[in-house]
Amino acid sequence: MKQYIKADEWKIIEEGFVPSYNKISESIFSVGNGRMGQRGNFEETYTGETLQGNYIAGVYYPDKTRVGWWKNGYPEYFAKVLNAANWIGIRVQIDGEELDLHTCTVESFRRELNMQEGYLQRSFTATLPSGKQVAVTSTRFCSIVDDETGVISYSVTPLNFSGLLTITPFIDGDIKNQDSNYDEKFWDEISRDVHPSGAFITLRTKKTGFDVCSGMHFCVTQRGEQLDLPTEAITKEKFVGISCSLAVKANEETVIYKYAANLSSENHPREQLLSACEMQVNAIVAKGFDMMLQEQKEAWAAKWAESDIVIDGDVSAQQAIRFNIFQLNQTYTGEDARLNIGPKGFTGEKYGGSTYWDTEAYCVPFYLATADARVTKQLLLYRYNQLGKAIENAEKLGFNKGAALYPMVTINGEECHNEWEITFEEIHRNGAIAYAIYNYIRYTDDKSYMADYGLEVLIGIARFWNQRVNWSEARKQYVMLGVTGPNEYENNVNNNWYTNMLACWCMDYAIQSVQFVRESAPDKFRTLTHKLQFNDAEEIGKWQHIIDNMYLPVDEERGIFLQQDGFLDKEQILVKDLPADQRPINQKWSWDRILRSCFIKQADVLQGIFFFEENYDLDTIRRNFDFYEPRTVHESSLSPCVHAVLAAKLGDERRAYEFYLRTARLDLNDYNNDTEDGLHITSMAGTWMSIVHGFAGMRVQNDRLIFNPFIPGKWKAFSFNIAFRSAIINVQINKEGVHLINRSAKAVNITIEGKEYLLNAHTKLDIKTEKVNVEVV
Amino acid sequence: MKQYIKADEWKIIEEGFVPSYNKISESIFSVGNGRMGQRGNFEETYTGETLQGNYIAGVYYPDKTRVGWWKNGYPEYFAKVLNAANWIGIRVQIDGEELDLHTCTVESFRRELNMQEGYLQRSFTATLPSGKQVAVTSTRFCSIVDDETGVISYSVTPLNFSGLLTITPFIDGDIKNQDSNYDEKFWDEISRDVHPSGAFITLRTKKTGFDVCSGMHFCVTQRGEQLDLPTEAITKEKFVGISCSLAVKANEETVIYKYAANLSSENHPREQLLSACEMQVNAIVAKGFDMMLQEQKEAWAAKWAESDIVIDGDVSAQQAIRFNIFQLNQTYTGEDARLNIGPKGFTGEKYGGSTYWDTEAYCVPFYLATADARVTKQLLLYRYNQLGKAIENAEKLGFNKGAALYPMVTINGEECHNEWEITFEEIHRNGAIAYAIYNYIRYTDDKSYMADYGLEVLIGIARFWNQRVNWSEARKQYVMLGVTGPNEYENNVNNNWYTNMLACWCMDYAIQSVQFVRESAPDKFRTLTHKLQFNDAEEIGKWQHIIDNMYLPVDEERGIFLQQDGFLDKEQILVKDLPADQRPINQKWSWDRILRSCFIKQADVLQGIFFFEENYDLDTIRRNFDFYEPRTVHESSLSPCVHAVLAAKLGDERRAYEFYLRTARLDLNDYNNDTEDGLHITSMAGTWMSIVHGFAGMRVQNDRLIFNPFIPGKWKAFSFNIAFRSAIINVQINKEGVHLINRSAKAVNITIEGKEYLLNAHTKLDIKTEKVNVEVV
Repeated sequence: MKQYIKADEWKIIEEGFVPSYNKISESIFSVGNGRMGQRGNFEETYTGETLQGNYIAGVYYPDKTRVGWWKNGYPEYFAKVLNAANWIGIRVQIDGEELDLHTCTVESFRRELNMQEGYLQRSFTATLPSGKQVAVTSTRFCSIVDDETGVISYSVTPLNFSGLLTITPFIDGDIKNQDSNYDEKFWDEISRDVHPSGAFITLRTKKTGFDVCSGMHFCVTQRGEQLDLPTEAITKEKFVGISCSLAVKANEETVIYKYAANLSSENHPREQLLSACEMQVNAIVAKGFDMMLQEQKEAWAAKWAESDIVIDGDVSAQQAIRFNIFQLNQTYTGEDARLNIGPKGFTGEKYGGSTYWDTEAYCVPFYLATADARVTKQLLLYRYNQLGKAIENAEKLGFNKGAALYPMVTINGEECHNEWEITFEEIHRNGAIAYAIYNYIRYTDDKSYMADYGLEVLIGIARFWNQRVNWSEARKQYVMLGVTGPNEYENNVNNNWYTNMLACWCMDYAIQSVQFVRESAPDKFRTLTHKLQFNDAEEIGKWQHIIDNMYLPVDEERGIFLQQDGFLDKEQILVKDLPADQRPINQKWSWDRILRSCFIKQADVLQGIFFFEENYDLDTIRRNFDFYEPRTVHESSLSPCVHAVLAAKLGDERRAYEFYLRTARLDLNDYNNDTEDGLHITSMAGTWMSIVHGFAGMRVQNDRLIFNPFIPGKWKAFSFNIAFRSAIINVQINKEGVHLINRSAKAVNITIEGKEYLLNAHTKLDIKTEKVNVEVV
Repeated sequence: MKQYIKADEWKIIEEGFVPSYNKISESIFSVGNGRMGQRGNFEETYTGETLQGNYIAGVYYPDKTRVGWWKNGYPEYFAKVLNAANWIGIRVQIDGEELDLHTCTVESFRRELNMQEGYLQRSFTATLPSGKQVAVTSTRFCSIVDDETGVISYSVTPLNFSGLLTITPFIDGDIKNQDSNYDEKFWDEISRDVHPSGAFITLRTKKTGFDVCSGMHFCVTQRGEQLDLPTEAITKEKFVGISCSLAVKANEETVIYKYAANLSSENHPREQLLSACEMQVNAIVAKGFDMMLQEQKEAWAAKWAESDIVIDGDVSAQQAIRFNIFQLNQTYTGEDARLNIGPKGFTGEKYGGSTYWDTEAYCVPFYLATADARVTKQLLLYRYNQLGKAIENAEKLGFNKGAALYPMVTINGEECHNEWEITFEEIHRNGAIAYAIYNYIRYTDDKSYMADYGLEVLIGIARFWNQRVNWSEARKQYVMLGVTGPNEYENNVNNNWYTNMLACWCMDYAIQSVQFVRESAPDKFRTLTHKLQFNDAEEIGKWQHIIDNMYLPVDEERGIFLQQDGFLDKEQILVKDLPADQRPINQKWSWDRILRSCFIKQADVLQGIFFFEENYDLDTIRRNFDFYEPRTVHESSLSPCVHAVLAAKLGDERRAYEFYLRTARLDLNDYNNDTEDGLHITSMAGTWMSIVHGFAGMRVQNDRLIFNPFIPGKWKAFSFNIAFRSAIINVQINKEGVHLINRSAKAVNITIEGKEYLLNAHTKLDIKTEKVNVEVV
């Protein structure tokens, strides 16, 4: 754990340069716009430890799988988000001497991520080995208005000398993914083009053949005047740069503006890619840096209006939750249904592929409540569009007749992961995808989604479960053998309660949805049944038979659902009795020992109760929580949030707050010593859930927004904006109660602590609540 | 399946050259002597498909592990038997034109492995592109008398021309393992030394630092006269050769004799390696090729006297069983306790490490019965000497206090394998190692082994099981969770009957052995308890408590032992109902589907019954056999033999013969399309078992040799030689009965079909048996 980030409500601030923290800060200070993302690297040369990273959404490479012992059915490759051309580079030399913080003495250094306005600023004073001292300030952002572009203003001021400043803005396409399996480079050069003040390079990914054209324009100013300087083109394999020199005087500032664009053949015809890139660069040059920054601020203000959480009385918590919301909004904007949310977003390379079940289970609730419904709809359409691949994937594993198994990890719909116990067995992911459809329609009331898209996916998923279970003659029930549940510290278990329950739910939801579409959109239903060769009566009959006869393991004595067959044969030890030096067990124990133990990585039975809490009475929830949570080591960053929400539900606000704290500053404080690999983007949505679904107790049921709030004692108040069915509601919770403001023209039905209210358009509602303040340690 | 090997009782014969079969033949025609082994490669240049392979026992390289997803506890490397310098090479040029069967027209070609006398002969007539035709005959063997040496006689006869013959005998050390994980070469050169008629090269393995000096001497003769020819040294990095030219006339034979030695620093002081190699080469040059061949024939005759099986009336079966016995004797001679039996012996690189539990379960019975007791003792000492590493291995997995877990795959005692479900969970291997001690002492009556070596191993193993089980509060019994049994088509199962039973047996045998040593060798016992900090009463008490309270899954209804918890929840399908196009399932099905199915790779419950058949009545054996065998796909070459022996035991001779047929000619007919990777050495011992323990029904119990024989109807008779407690017994079984000849000076107690006999020294015994002939289809 590290605590070098300065507290601030709206900014992430690093003061002083600690090279050993640099890669961590590069992750934390990432900027992005959903279309591209850039780690907090330096513009000028840096020869110290760094992970230079620029990632273009949707541009991936199928890296040949590395595997020790091949199993039939493994994918041939692992699709990786590609580290793309470095577009931020500005080489700076002073009288021929390189500006490089690794070789300079750094007198002052400050990195600041302005989350409110959406830009990164860095300023430092450094003394070069020659003794020359310079002050530099750079400001950069990836525009969310012009989302294929990024801009930089880079100011250099000599402090104790006059001399010759040489600057070389460049684009370097000779980039290698740090996680390349076989140490290969994934890009080939297609073309290079250099004008006096602009340079373009087009690169093509090997195998996948994506073209990306990266272009730049730059200008140099002093006292607001643009200078007309002679330039020299510098060009080599996969590299274009433009160099110019000028005499600079002590204490006189020179500012370089660099305008860059990254255009992909996914979004432009290949043959027009260069000209489109030139047009895009010209357009932002015409707009100018200041106007772009102004637009950026306005666009971010609009995002915050939908999604901000304000915490009064706890700056550290305030900073953390805004950081999470900011990074989520930088990662995914819903502009493009081909994109999704990688576990590291655009902040690193780890975990390669972009989409896990994290999206449906953790991110969807965030985007549902903080953005227009179309944003979540795009996430759903991503899976809809990959249904064909999910059916192919199931076929590879021996299923047929339209059964769909969505991959564990994917970019383009094909499975990327290759551990049999995960790839082939962690199949509950299929259920999360069905659940997201349910959650989306419940939240948005967009019932048309079901006939248009949802049902087709649900039928594919139900068909999978139908084939995946088998009849046990011994039990005279259906069983599901050989699965891995959300608790990945158990592999190849039989009758994982969560998976069995979720499979039944999926089939039941599919049956209901069939009936709904059959009645509400008979023409669409006919078209669909024909397309899918869906034998309505027969298939539904089979599903219903499974639902009615499924084995769901329980322990009657304890009144709990049993995580899987045989769970009670394990030695029952609680996490509190595990010596500290044994944790985290995934670093200290061999895999068999982890598997044999009763220790749980992340919510499993409790994930099921979390999804369907309305199906269980409080006593049932409490018995399961009290049994499973003490056995849970929470070694996934996705674990605490579910427990926070359930603890809040159970009235255990103290523990809800404790669970919230476990992930709130996961990356800002580098809890797990892995932030340098990139940020834990998907778990950030979990922290948001801990506050909104946990502390505020927000739910949506029967077209109503429901709140059962409390406030951690350390906080004076917290408030958040919620987008709900084209209304935007501001919810404030303070020591007295709940204060709602409907900022829209639409009335919303509200329930607070069980009492129903109508919150009319453009009105306020102040309710004193019973539970207002919980003292926490 | 291929059938290009000609039938012959004593020879393996290939006639005609089929390049696409060449790698298969290279495996089949391997020669070795337990110290080194050489695939059936050509001496002259061959530019077609080939796997050039020469392997030196005990010389390995720790190749960095390749793994997709690292699990804590995985070994860093996989130790591989090394492909070493090519010592057989003799380059042949005719008027400057290369003799290379890949570019020649091959008129006739014959490879012949003389198993009786232990050498490989190859002869061919080939026409070079120029039209020149030559006849070549080469004879080579690895001497089992001078076991660091190999010799070649290579004869060349011009058939339609006279011209200049240039020959270049060489040693090429620039060798790469085909299975190198990262495409690295594993050898560095230390020195090169070339004399006019001899050349030496010393190479050192990277990381492990084994030095191997390979040396050669050669001479050229015509009409039995050695020629004195000028020679030219050819030397480059990792290569030494000597070239000479001579005028040859049509139909005049020139014979080159090449004498080679491979000496390893494992057997000689490093600084004397070169001089020792020179001495060794000089010694065999002095002996001469003919004398060496004579000694080789005599030594093989002695081996056959101990281990031959003669089958009368079935040449194909005769050839096959001799091939298996021959290859086993080429692989392991018991000369060196640091060596063991790799699954491919010295005939290929696959499976890297040398030792699996195959050695104890399948090979020990063969060597016990076909060689002096010291040969098997060496195999046991190999494990005894690696006990310390087995304890370290267990410690890495979280065990302590002297618990030993022998590795799944090893060369030097360290674990090499890296699949968690095997490495960490296929722990029954520990039981096979204990069983081998039991089996050795039962067969040889060498009770002193227990106090000297056996008990220490048994205590380490019992300590492991003691820690590996856990008490289930739910069952009020001990359970063993998370294991993989011999049936590797189930992973991470709970309460595998075989493993649970074997664990109890190990602890019970350890308790008995403690008592035996305590009484029979009290001094040694005291020393041992002190060395092991063995708390006699307490530890034995705990073991006994586990034995008395172990959960062993059974199905009462069917009266069978249950392979593992939940086995009957599977869909119960029989192999006969599996469509042929679905097999082998390990090539057709994804891993999860295999795991979920009831199909069994190799004997699991039945392996336990096979080991301890005297503990089960025939009905119990039959019920289990009839339940499990029809679910068994026998996709391990180690599977059929166990079933053959059990089927014979059950009086189902027809099926016993069918199982025998499945492996008898596994490599000779390339059943699995993988013989080119090397021979299935360890499964060859299984075929031997099918005949001796199966057809002849041989057992050793209470110091008696027991037979319950039958004879397959196709055979007229079969006989074999058995070494038993310093006696050598010839056993012949024909249509009338059993005919025994005691060729030794020691009387042996015999039981045939339940009747007891005393077979005195140097006497015969002819017994008419009830069951003499079984017609097979």
